[in-house]
Amino acid sequence: MAKKSLGARTLAGPLPAWLIGSYDAAGKPNIMTAAWCGICCSKPPEVSVSLRAATYSHAQIMTRRAFTVSVPPASLVREVDFTGLASGREMDKFAASGLTPVRSELVDAPYVAECPLVLECKVVHVHELGLHTQFIGEILDVKAEEAALDAEGRLIPEALAMIAYLGEFRAYFPLGPSIGKSFAIGRELLEKKP
Amino acid sequence: MAKKSLGARTLAGPLPAWLIGSYDAAGKPNIMTAAWCGICCSKPPEVSVSLRAATYSHAQIMTRRAFTVSVPPASLVREVDFTGLASGREMDKFAASGLTPVRSELVDAPYVAECPLVLECKVVHVHELGLHTQFIGEILDVKAEEAALDAEGRLIPEALAMIAYLGEFRAYFPLGPSIGKSFAIGRELLEKKP
Repeated sequence: MAKKSLGARTLAGPLPAWLIGSYDAAGKPNIMTAAWCGICCSKPPEVSVSLRAATYSHAQIMTRRAFTVSVPPASLVREVDFTGLASGREMDKFAASGLTPVRSELVDAPYVAECPLVLECKVVHVHELGLHTQFIGEILDVKAEEAALDAEGRLIPEALAMIAYLGEFRAYFPLGPSIGKSFAIGRELLEKKP
Repeated sequence: MAKKSLGARTLAGPLPAWLIGSYDAAGKPNIMTAAWCGICCSKPPEVSVSLRAATYSHAQIMTRRAFTVSVPPASLVREVDFTGLASGREMDKFAASGLTPVRSELVDAPYVAECPLVLECKVVHVHELGLHTQFIGEILDVKAEEAALDAEGRLIPEALAMIAYLGEFRAYFPLGPSIGKSFAIGRELLEKKP
């Protein structure tokens, strides 16, 4: 298991490919794809979203102190790639992609109607890390499409059809069927601990 | 596409399931599974890893200002779950799981020999976010198993066989075959922009 050095690079995964929603100064809804994101705290519930200062969304989120995370399904992978390629400075990305902005009632930002899962976030910390600014958003609410919920109100993984992103391969990947339950399949090793 | 409120929760994905390596005060190598992680800056290259102060790893990383990220393949899903269940306070998790610690030559932390991809990180920022502390680690090097590289030295996605984690479903998921190339499949929408 010899290992080879690949250098100091941002190479790890899987990463999400989330659509980050914000309003610009004129109130135009905008979205951009971001992969350098994740959950980062449970109490309060918080997400982390890193954006370069050069992006159009960066200034809007800095000003309005709010954003949304729309978690796209695999069926929207083309739109996801598009909103990572285009800039809201030059066009209306909602109109160009055919996606529908919905005004959040909780935060000053729009989310994507076509995404089965959305998070409404207010900015609580801003960390300047270097080329990227890390916005920490407190999650004020999570909303799910009713079609993504079963009769007991539980989310259906297949209805979310989440996308993983691996920058190293410049590619998007779906999730396959579960390979194990957490806090469960490792118990066997726990029981035979030395 | 009516949406239902699910409340303020840490519900989003896909998230990684990374093995975070550190040494304790006695020099014993330890690992724990963490999902609230991600890439967060490109220059300098940085990862974000959020841990509760109650974890055994938290104090070690705070003291030694270093950690590793070992990105596990799907074949280690049982070990991944185990290192999330057990505490290094009570046992030697490397010994109990059968995983092999390798001393990093760059940072004061061990990584997992059996993982095809590892990152060696020094702590450059510590953010107290609430229940979780967010450690920002500068990536000093990425190392890959030679068997995970093709003849041109490029990583092979199938050899990494990364695991995604969805806490909502308490389950681990493999990645399926790619559903699209980034900076590519969205170009069609870019060309027909309004």
